[in-house]
Amino acid sequence: MKYLLFEFLLVIFFVYIQCEITYIEVKYPLKGKRSPPNAVWPHPQQINISNDLLYIRPNDLAVYSNLQTCDIIAKAIERYKPIFFPPTLDMKQPSSNMENILQNLTLNVKGNIQCEKYIELNSNEAYNLTIKQKFALVEAYSVWGLLRGLETFSQLIYINEQNYIVINSSVDIIDSPRFRHRGAMLDSARHFLPVSIIKKNLDVMSYNKLNVFHWHLVDDQSFPFESKTFPNLSRAGAYSPDHVYTPDDVADIIEHARLRGIRVIPEIDTPGHTFSWSKSMPELITVCWTHGKSYQSIYSIQGEMEIFNPSEPRVYSTMDALLREIHERFPSNYIHLGMDEVYDKCWLSNPNIRQWMVDNNILSTKNLHKYYADQILDITRNISVTPIVWQDVWDEHVELPPGTIIQVWKDSSDNIEFSSWASYLNRAANEGYNVILSSPWYLNYISYGKYNTDTSVMNLEFFKYYEVEPLRHFSGSSEAKERILGGEACLWGEFVDGTNLLSRFWPKAAAVAERLWSAASINNSEDAQFRLDVHRCRLLRRGIPAQPILNGYCGNYDLGMSKSMINHPLFNYDNPIWTETIAPSSARSFASLSSSSSSRMFNYKLYHIVYLILSLFFVYFCRK
Amino acid sequence: MKYLLFEFLLVIFFVYIQCEITYIEVKYPLKGKRSPPNAVWPHPQQINISNDLLYIRPNDLAVYSNLQTCDIIAKAIERYKPIFFPPTLDMKQPSSNMENILQNLTLNVKGNIQCEKYIELNSNEAYNLTIKQKFALVEAYSVWGLLRGLETFSQLIYINEQNYIVINSSVDIIDSPRFRHRGAMLDSARHFLPVSIIKKNLDVMSYNKLNVFHWHLVDDQSFPFESKTFPNLSRAGAYSPDHVYTPDDVADIIEHARLRGIRVIPEIDTPGHTFSWSKSMPELITVCWTHGKSYQSIYSIQGEMEIFNPSEPRVYSTMDALLREIHERFPSNYIHLGMDEVYDKCWLSNPNIRQWMVDNNILSTKNLHKYYADQILDITRNISVTPIVWQDVWDEHVELPPGTIIQVWKDSSDNIEFSSWASYLNRAANEGYNVILSSPWYLNYISYGKYNTDTSVMNLEFFKYYEVEPLRHFSGSSEAKERILGGEACLWGEFVDGTNLLSRFWPKAAAVAERLWSAASINNSEDAQFRLDVHRCRLLRRGIPAQPILNGYCGNYDLGMSKSMINHPLFNYDNPIWTETIAPSSARSFASLSSSSSSRMFNYKLYHIVYLILSLFFVYFCRK
Repeated sequence: MKYLLFEFLLVIFFVYIQCEITYIEVKYPLKGKRSPPNAVWPHPQQINISNDLLYIRPNDLAVYSNLQTCDIIAKAIERYKPIFFPPTLDMKQPSSNMENILQNLTLNVKGNIQCEKYIELNSNEAYNLTIKQKFALVEAYSVWGLLRGLETFSQLIYINEQNYIVINSSVDIIDSPRFRHRGAMLDSARHFLPVSIIKKNLDVMSYNKLNVFHWHLVDDQSFPFESKTFPNLSRAGAYSPDHVYTPDDVADIIEHARLRGIRVIPEIDTPGHTFSWSKSMPELITVCWTHGKSYQSIYSIQGEMEIFNPSEPRVYSTMDALLREIHERFPSNYIHLGMDEVYDKCWLSNPNIRQWMVDNNILSTKNLHKYYADQILDITRNISVTPIVWQDVWDEHVELPPGTIIQVWKDSSDNIEFSSWASYLNRAANEGYNVILSSPWYLNYISYGKYNTDTSVMNLEFFKYYEVEPLRHFSGSSEAKERILGGEACLWGEFVDGTNLLSRFWPKAAAVAERLWSAASINNSEDAQFRLDVHRCRLLRRGIPAQPILNGYCGNYDLGMSKSMINHPLFNYDNPIWTETIAPSSARSFASLSSSSSSRMFNYKLYHIVYLILSLFFVYFCRK
Repeated sequence: MKYLLFEFLLVIFFVYIQCEITYIEVKYPLKGKRSPPNAVWPHPQQINISNDLLYIRPNDLAVYSNLQTCDIIAKAIERYKPIFFPPTLDMKQPSSNMENILQNLTLNVKGNIQCEKYIELNSNEAYNLTIKQKFALVEAYSVWGLLRGLETFSQLIYINEQNYIVINSSVDIIDSPRFRHRGAMLDSARHFLPVSIIKKNLDVMSYNKLNVFHWHLVDDQSFPFESKTFPNLSRAGAYSPDHVYTPDDVADIIEHARLRGIRVIPEIDTPGHTFSWSKSMPELITVCWTHGKSYQSIYSIQGEMEIFNPSEPRVYSTMDALLREIHERFPSNYIHLGMDEVYDKCWLSNPNIRQWMVDNNILSTKNLHKYYADQILDITRNISVTPIVWQDVWDEHVELPPGTIIQVWKDSSDNIEFSSWASYLNRAANEGYNVILSSPWYLNYISYGKYNTDTSVMNLEFFKYYEVEPLRHFSGSSEAKERILGGEACLWGEFVDGTNLLSRFWPKAAAVAERLWSAASINNSEDAQFRLDVHRCRLLRRGIPAQPILNGYCGNYDLGMSKSMINHPLFNYDNPIWTETIAPSSARSFASLSSSSSSRMFNYKLYHIVYLILSLFFVYFCRK
């Protein structure tokens, strides 16, 4: 009896806590609307949702599709099972004779749509998701729309306080992306990014409905991409023989992305950023001169050998062969050509290049840029590939083929109102180019996590990314507006590798994802912080070590806690320890790891009823 | 034959790469001396070392000690085995009849020293390490010195290009710490830090010879410390019943630290930062008033209930009982009392406190601070505990008992030359207080990783921490100088939890560790960057996901690579997945996991001789 009173008091305290989580400093009580536990991220275009709930029976939920034979759908259904029903959770199975049980989920494409293979820029990702009369239905015009709808469905499921898996009983979502190109750029040259981490990152991208993996494959520091045509490039240019993406690795990553509705766009950055090429093909690289001496670097401006030599014909034959191979191996019809940060002082410092310019009547560096770009763009034209370039070559007034995508990255200033990236977007789109925006989304520029804009406002770091409005200052025709395809969150790799990639990138990249998917009117950072906090806990439950954006906790899913999924084999790839110590067949099997129990788990059995009554009582006090 | 030529060329490339790793941008070639693969971090006081090497036979290396029965030594020897001989490496066993094999390692205390239990502020951590005539000897005046020497020995071991484990054949190290108090502060209140992560952090601390874990246990946001006297504090104040440090958890952490020569100093921060206490003991907390209304917060200055009520006698009886319990449970004779950031406007806003001040002739907030501090300091005096306080209470000119340690944290400015923290150190030490420094070492203030001080210099983020010289501006007697006990790297937890703690803190905290251990003259950041890079790779091999500070790689130990140790059970604690899927007895046994093979491992067997000849050839070219 003494214990019962004790437990009773415990429940009081526990409920009381739930009312008042102190999110940041006490002296900075956060504004904004608190989020329901199953808020959808990115926010759908239209959503109507009931407060009533249906129970879900983990062992019984059937998923049907009129594209069940399509590998993308079949594999997605398999993949989402442990996402619907977290394997380390002690969920309760509602008895089958209970009412209010969700009967099944159906994923149907409308019309005479067949299974597709690769998502494209203009693929239709729209979907409708309805739950009524105990049936859930996702309808779309493509497999991609079904994937997006399935993701939304998975986010609506949550575990309630009584440990039942539930979902709203009446849901009506009409959803489609605002922008077509929603990307994440990773840099595998400054540090090699293991295949397992890239795949895990593709998983998180799909949870955030991003659809482009821009793969900055090679750079000055290393050349990890194993070319079949020029294997010496990675043999000499990679950090080590193990720090290489073999053809199988690349195919594995492309397939992983394909199944999740993500395009992989490779970047082969030239004519600058090519020092790693010099290890095997020094003949392609410009030697810089200073004071009459060759092989000279100028500190903080240029290295001694980091730019292609535009006067060298072998540059173009090599690029022709390499880009053809890339085009063959990457299903995307886009190749990113880089063309950024070309320090033309090195070109001009080289007497041979100066002579060649005179001989060829190329009388300015602008024309030298143009000469190089024209040759490479001819190659992409010949192989019917659409080029993407960083804005630099366009800054140099080089004319680019129609349809070229210009990636705006300059001016990453925090000043949201008067950012010059907006004028770049304006001008490029009005000149007829397609544009993607990255300037405000260089997520490698990290900070403490919060900043004060004035003494009375506390802003979180992600607000900077979230409050960007790509079209705020846009002026131009509606056709020009259509050419603003979207944007990319970029994570440059100087200080990023497998140890910190996922925690640095997420959930900040999710802020970019919502900006690119959701309506422009979904822009209240203070509300978003609570939804993103919920979403971050969701990512933890799916094995992603996304870092916190607020004080607080994610229940037992916090890393290192009893139910953490971070190292769970279901959400990890190629972990050498796992494959050594667990038989591969069981390592990625859902059933074999689906149960666990924690000795410290809060035992709800004793005071369910008390808890419920008290909850109602305290809800009254908690309301503001 | 065709293959042999092919492999031959591969070796050429590979050796060539080793000469020219591009560390940062090509245009910023790094200055500084490249590090040997076994540079000791923190740098010893005196080190003489040969280029000749001894081989080590992993199966045969005997370790002796004249304190073999001391649990600290016996367990350390066991613990260091997998550190000496990384279990996932394909090491070669030199044949036993080879010459140049290290025969054994002896760890001896000098004099009549017995096994000790807990390290203290004034414990002797000095040691000598010598290797000659194939025998290694660590000598010290305490078990703590032996631990530090054992760590140094472990760092001297490395795996050479031929995959043999080697160590320098002649070593003469005389070493001792410059400062006695070398700490790391973690904050388990903004986010709960799982026990497993705290223990892993204690491991890394020992690898860096840090000897104090300052545990900021509780704060406004949560009260995870389970008190036996006041269990309701954590029941109501913790984020959840699982986000609690039970008495067993605390004892486990203290024991883990004890075995590694680390003191655990708990912080119970009062009278501010006590919002979480209000959940169970609202009677202890001052209610703030504004405009004649109670329970009012003033945005960005104070919360509505975040400071103890100094007029409330129950505050002092509670603190008395709690501090007695803390003293009983934590073997350290120090307790950190906090006493920072007390927003006394709230005190003055409360009419009852104002009346009480008049009644008790307390006519200023300074005297109110003093009143509170005096009561608490009386308690620590009664229980014979030395108090540590943040500098704030000293800033308020409250007189503190002699021996009090003042932790200087204000002015974390980057301006190393004219920092006012130096004047705080000066003044406090000259007033007779002991001092520890933290101002320049708030490692939660993160940045991109590099910064340019002017156009021609590239600085890495860790330079800021490394270039701090605590005594640069010190003026005072040598007795006053002795009172500067050391410092602490702090990691506040607003945006830190298990997902990112280790990668954010390490290897930056290692920069602080070297500053506090090594001679002031070891202060060349450009040299240190290469040694720290080597040390960071060492941490990866020991399962710590320390983030990169430079471009480059750590061989197969990079996270996600075939030999990564990050998730290996040898270096992880209480991972729920591991304990579920691996039998506990084997999970932490060295032998059962000592072998592995990688399908992609670079096969050295074929061209050892060629490689050696080429190495010599290329070393000639690589020298600068």
